[in-house]
Amino acid sequence: MTTRLVEVRQKVLKQNDLVARELRQRFLNAGTFVVTLVSSPGSGKTAFLEKVLFLLRTRYKVAALVGDLATDNDAKRLARSEVPVKQIITGTVCHLEAEMVKSALEGWLDGPPEILFVENVGNLVCPSSYDLGEDLRLVLMSVTEGEDKPLKYPTIFNTADIAIITKMDIAQAVEFDARLARKNIQAVRPGIEILEVSSKTGAGMDRLLSLLEARCIAKRAARKTPAPV
Amino acid sequence: MTTRLVEVRQKVLKQNDLVARELRQRFLNAGTFVVTLVSSPGSGKTAFLEKVLFLLRTRYKVAALVGDLATDNDAKRLARSEVPVKQIITGTVCHLEAEMVKSALEGWLDGPPEILFVENVGNLVCPSSYDLGEDLRLVLMSVTEGEDKPLKYPTIFNTADIAIITKMDIAQAVEFDARLARKNIQAVRPGIEILEVSSKTGAGMDRLLSLLEARCIAKRAARKTPAPV
Repeated sequence: MTTRLVEVRQKVLKQNDLVARELRQRFLNAGTFVVTLVSSPGSGKTAFLEKVLFLLRTRYKVAALVGDLATDNDAKRLARSEVPVKQIITGTVCHLEAEMVKSALEGWLDGPPEILFVENVGNLVCPSSYDLGEDLRLVLMSVTEGEDKPLKYPTIFNTADIAIITKMDIAQAVEFDARLARKNIQAVRPGIEILEVSSKTGAGMDRLLSLLEARCIAKRAARKTPAPV
Repeated sequence: MTTRLVEVRQKVLKQNDLVARELRQRFLNAGTFVVTLVSSPGSGKTAFLEKVLFLLRTRYKVAALVGDLATDNDAKRLARSEVPVKQIITGTVCHLEAEMVKSALEGWLDGPPEILFVENVGNLVCPSSYDLGEDLRLVLMSVTEGEDKPLKYPTIFNTADIAIITKMDIAQAVEFDARLARKNIQAVRPGIEILEVSSKTGAGMDRLLSLLEARCIAKRAARKTPAPV
């Protein structure tokens, strides 16, 4: 039974990789920089994304897809940023798949965005295995979750490109040990960039935006450079 | 492809139900009351369980199984309560299954405990579908996670017997709206008992313990009553 399930799961993952590859090529052709967000439920992904959209919207054509099991609360909340936002309802599925992203893009926007954010379902396990064709995967953890989260959920940190520590405004109130958290993140993903932010106060957002912009510009430059013959 | 996966998944769930039924009968015969804990990562399940074990250990024979992807941090932490604790490492599996509980019990304790706690992997999606043969399923959410978690993850709240709001000591600091959270829990699971606790200060623990004891005693009484002919 277990063997059969593993086989089927591998086929699903392989199929997902094919769609993700197709999406990645499409984003490259369109000049869209794609950033995905993963975290446990309640880490502040939506508050963070709301802040980021608000800060970027005057300078870039941005859009966001948000995955959720049941509600469109997040999309409603993000719509306040006046940026195009679309909800992907996954039902009982614990992660987004490349096919869901592809379907959601179908006939949605007039032209391709310069930066597309994709907020995954709140889950520290399942989303790690599914490539969504993104350029950058951000993993968020809040100061209230315990400094050992990276050790307990290594794969999600290992497959991420930037780690973001959220809710820094209440770090002191919950006796958050930033040094220990950083050490644990580096233990599972050596060399990863770690940012500390507060969506409430805006602290740390400048550095994040510079980082996103630098990566976005680098992608565009790579696109314009003709491939070596 | 998807149809095939659903079929295989249904078989796995059915197989899980058979093992869960076997476990339930075994726990009944042994007079063991089984309480499982589900929540998102970082909701404070382990701190909560540590407090509960500490408070119960002088009055009952208690034991705990804790599920985690990778580390045995939780087991080490819970061992401070001087209660028998065993870790179940799930690898990349996002939930506990009845078979894992059954294997973990194999040759573990000298005699059956009166109360067995089983802490699931931190995940608000996957554990909801797997019966572990428990008498009582507690779903925990912390005051930092956002009051709309029940609406976003309805199944896990719907399959729980008691909802526990944790980290009440920082409720004010994070501007937690208890009324809204309660309303949202009741919306997905009308009539469910909701307790507000702080593992740090111990607030709310008395009521929880009375509740657990009452249910535990009720199970024992039911066991002693001969089945009607």
